Amino acid sequence: MKISKLVGDRFKERPSDCVIDSHALMIRGGYMKYVANGIFSLYTPTKRIVRKVEQIIREEMDKIDGQEVLFPVALPASLWEESGRLESVGNELLRFTDRNKNPMVLGMTHEEAAVQLVREYGQTYSKYPFMIYQIQTKFRDEARPRAGLIRVREFTMKDAYSFHTSQEDLEQYYDRCLKAYDRIFERAGIPEVVTVAADSGMMGGSISHEYMLLTPVGEDSLAICSACDYKSNMEAAKSIVSNDNKLPLAELELVATPNASTIEDVAKFLKVPMENTCKAVVYQKHATGQYVIAFLSGDLDISESKLQNVIGEDISAAVIEEDSGIVAGFIGPNGLSDDIQIVYDESIKGVNNLVVGANKVDYHYTGFNADRDLDEIKYVDVAKVTEGGICPVCGKPALTLSRGIEVGNIFQLGTKYSESMDMKYVDEDGESKAPIMGCYGIGVGRLVASVCEASHDDYGPIWPMAIAPWQVHVCCLRVDDEECKNYADGLYAKLQDVNAEVIYDDRKIRPGAMFSDADLLGVPIRVVVSPRNMKESCVEIVTRDKKITKQVNLDDAVSEIQALIVELNTI
Amino acid sequence: MKISKLVGDRFKERPSDCVIDSHALMIRGGYMKYVANGIFSLYTPTKRIVRKVEQIIREEMDKIDGQEVLFPVALPASLWEESGRLESVGNELLRFTDRNKNPMVLGMTHEEAAVQLVREYGQTYSKYPFMIYQIQTKFRDEARPRAGLIRVREFTMKDAYSFHTSQEDLEQYYDRCLKAYDRIFERAGIPEVVTVAADSGMMGGSISHEYMLLTPVGEDSLAICSACDYKSNMEAAKSIVSNDNKLPLAELELVATPNASTIEDVAKFLKVPMENTCKAVVYQKHATGQYVIAFLSGDLDISESKLQNVIGEDISAAVIEEDSGIVAGFIGPNGLSDDIQIVYDESIKGVNNLVVGANKVDYHYTGFNADRDLDEIKYVDVAKVTEGGICPVCGKPALTLSRGIEVGNIFQLGTKYSESMDMKYVDEDGESKAPIMGCYGIGVGRLVASVCEASHDDYGPIWPMAIAPWQVHVCCLRVDDEECKNYADGLYAKLQDVNAEVIYDDRKIRPGAMFSDADLLGVPIRVVVSPRNMKESCVEIVTRDKKITKQVNLDDAVSEIQALIVELNTI
Repeated sequence: MKISKLVGDRFKERPSDCVIDSHALMIRGGYMKYVANGIFSLYTPTKRIVRKVEQIIREEMDKIDGQEVLFPVALPASLWEESGRLESVGNELLRFTDRNKNPMVLGMTHEEAAVQLVREYGQTYSKYPFMIYQIQTKFRDEARPRAGLIRVREFTMKDAYSFHTSQEDLEQYYDRCLKAYDRIFERAGIPEVVTVAADSGMMGGSISHEYMLLTPVGEDSLAICSACDYKSNMEAAKSIVSNDNKLPLAELELVATPNASTIEDVAKFLKVPMENTCKAVVYQKHATGQYVIAFLSGDLDISESKLQNVIGEDISAAVIEEDSGIVAGFIGPNGLSDDIQIVYDESIKGVNNLVVGANKVDYHYTGFNADRDLDEIKYVDVAKVTEGGICPVCGKPALTLSRGIEVGNIFQLGTKYSESMDMKYVDEDGESKAPIMGCYGIGVGRLVASVCEASHDDYGPIWPMAIAPWQVHVCCLRVDDEECKNYADGLYAKLQDVNAEVIYDDRKIRPGAMFSDADLLGVPIRVVVSPRNMKESCVEIVTRDKKITKQVNLDDAVSEIQALIVELNTI
Repeated sequence: MKISKLVGDRFKERPSDCVIDSHALMIRGGYMKYVANGIFSLYTPTKRIVRKVEQIIREEMDKIDGQEVLFPVALPASLWEESGRLESVGNELLRFTDRNKNPMVLGMTHEEAAVQLVREYGQTYSKYPFMIYQIQTKFRDEARPRAGLIRVREFTMKDAYSFHTSQEDLEQYYDRCLKAYDRIFERAGIPEVVTVAADSGMMGGSISHEYMLLTPVGEDSLAICSACDYKSNMEAAKSIVSNDNKLPLAELELVATPNASTIEDVAKFLKVPMENTCKAVVYQKHATGQYVIAFLSGDLDISESKLQNVIGEDISAAVIEEDSGIVAGFIGPNGLSDDIQIVYDESIKGVNNLVVGANKVDYHYTGFNADRDLDEIKYVDVAKVTEGGICPVCGKPALTLSRGIEVGNIFQLGTKYSESMDMKYVDEDGESKAPIMGCYGIGVGRLVASVCEASHDDYGPIWPMAIAPWQVHVCCLRVDDEECKNYADGLYAKLQDVNAEVIYDDRKIRPGAMFSDADLLGVPIRVVVSPRNMKESCVEIVTRDKKITKQVNLDDAVSEIQALIVELNTI
């Protein structure tokens, strides 16, 4: 391919709406174009990368006995009704009606479609286990698409579904899939991706993991133990608080705390440590509007997703009405309306002496002790873990907080879909049972953007050989120099003859402009043909990451380049 | 792959709702599953075929300098507003709103998205010509999906868009694309596909062609000249009528034709040839309800799409209201309301003596002569061509009518989209101009079903080697015979070692059941390992089309199979 014919514009200025480098570079490099909020068209370089990534995924899925299928993008809403998700999933599920007024949805994940496809096939135990997967367009009507291909509304995804007759079999397969994912990320050029424990969210099921590329620009917060192997999404990381008693047991006492409506103000005013204050956080249930109040240690933050899992339904930040009896800034556990659902975090368990709100403006109680002052209460974990917090596995105060981009996820779904959708098989002993499912996703576009995020410099992406849009970028610095041009033309032809993937720049432009375009395209091997080199009967070979720079003899160029392609394509 | 693990059911009974063989066989063979009206999931065999077809298409598109891109499935309605098609296209365009109430559509074709992608890129003449294409899911809300993958609502399509600075350049490229299409159909195993002139319909533009697989079960009607090269979709075939005067000129005379309200009755009653009667056909404009009446020779049928093109807007069969002044069965050109749009077909031009309706129950006129009895009228071509009709190219009465499945189409779009969407480039002489476009489509799933329709027997598809789901099907007839099983296992392994695509049947089932499954999977080469063959130290190799049957020595099996794969994969 000649770069003069490559459709798409490359330019220098960083677009002002790009918050992360990969987004900016992929816009600047002519990789994609904005069509609508969270919706992009992809130009040829991206499409070439995507096809290579898809092929890597396909090979690894086939290796673990996956069978590639294709589910529809547009699905009848009735399928989602069967699983119960037509109701339970929010606005991200795009619902519409067709010309005959049939309710439909755009597939954002395909558990229902997978069960529908194999419901008849999987009627006897001998057919199990099996795994089916697809690589297909999905639509998720995200409220806040951002960061280019990282969070979009329309995206290509590999989603796989496995079916088993026992939990053990699922776990064995889950483990094979974990390893296949490791190979995929390694082959795609981001072996540094880590596996973290995850919250299953709307997918259902118990155990799930996410694959995270650690980067400060990631959307997800992670807790990683520096003393052991523990890694978890913050949403799923168990918060453990030592609850040391810094203050002695005391009597409950109503005290005036004028104008002290934040936890920091109260602690300062009463001269108690933050750990001896009790914070209240107010939410409302999405469906009914019922208030939910969580009490937790004043030095901790609430984890909204943990709280949502405890409540078992969608919640959102509360609007506190006059007649609710809730006194913002002074909320305490005593004397709240019975209509309010109250949740106690484990961080206040066993603390002798807490400051809590008195449900009265400008008043708090001191000396509060939950076990003593409240009827039998159940403590749950709804607090976020903290930097330096206690690791739930090794018990050391060694948690570190990081950020990451989720590049893949795997779930043990259990029988949520098979049971709700009435998929049954007859077991060896003649019993009818619901198969146990797992599901396994990778967003293709997000993976591509993540590789760019992990591997770039100020001038452009540095694509790994295995997924690069082209393998070799030939720059003819002086097309008006006949010797130069003839050699470059010949090299371009010869490289194509040996099936190298070449992009060739024979435009009459400044070397600087030529090199910035090459940087933006991020092709691993650059070959520079210039009059100066020609005089010495050689060309210059430079890798995009600058690790290799060498002059090679004109006659050896093709074989040297071929060898370098193999060398860089280690996986 | 072992057939015992292949997801999907195969069965014997033809489903009652399948009107064509390919649909029945692809359901019976576990190729796809119904999800909703016109929406299917595809099982692994189809997905494997589809990937090969896509790769053939990709290679041929790349050969004619195409650049693969990807447009979104969900598009902002505003793009379609720009081109004017948001209004002009009917219910097939699925419209919906997203969570923020933004109007969106599901892409059924991507001219608008193509222009949006290259509008900035293509601003100077030096960038031209270029062609971009994608292979992507589309949704078209068809009123009547039918025939399996032939007419569906959701489908995968290759759609290509070319951009040019002159009509000559477009025509040259169009010709290259015509040839690329020929190669695609040849490689996919249906070289018999013919190119026919077509009607451009909602795409706009003037010249267009369709690729047709001739088959009695096709949806499209075609006119093919047996004396020359002329081939056309009926909708686009010019109707030429000799208009011989069988009756002499006569006076206009009102005659009673009691109870003769059909053309046949009238001709019989008045004892005149059908060619001397004039038929009236009534439609209504979709938008306004205005009546449209077309007059044509009594022995011809109206072509609704020709009439629609003449009218320039959507029409549908009329509901004749009491106050319309239209007297069904007795409609004639004289005395109709001015509110009615009247169209005269060329078949009544120059005919001396016609019987026409008198717009009065039980009365007709005889001796009608359009040129004499009407104010200056314009004749147009709105009649269907007929079997034995006159070829518009060679002039011989040699037209034959056939049916076909449209497997591809190509359009010269002109500047319809570039002008409406304000895409401009600066020409060599500094002038600002709208580029000229072409577009080129192939439905992938329909192509697969068409190959099945063209190449099957009563027992299943006969897939051509180039797109077959597997190349070799090994049948071990007696898994309980150790020698047999060992050899078959080894053959399966060895064939995989030489990268042959093998499906292996080592189930303990009757040979009859094994062979019907093999027939339904349609793999080109079948290898039968049986105790009887083993005794003679050989295996049996049979091609799916039964053209080759041979015994080969056990030790030669792999090399013989390899040679046969090459031999059958001629293209």
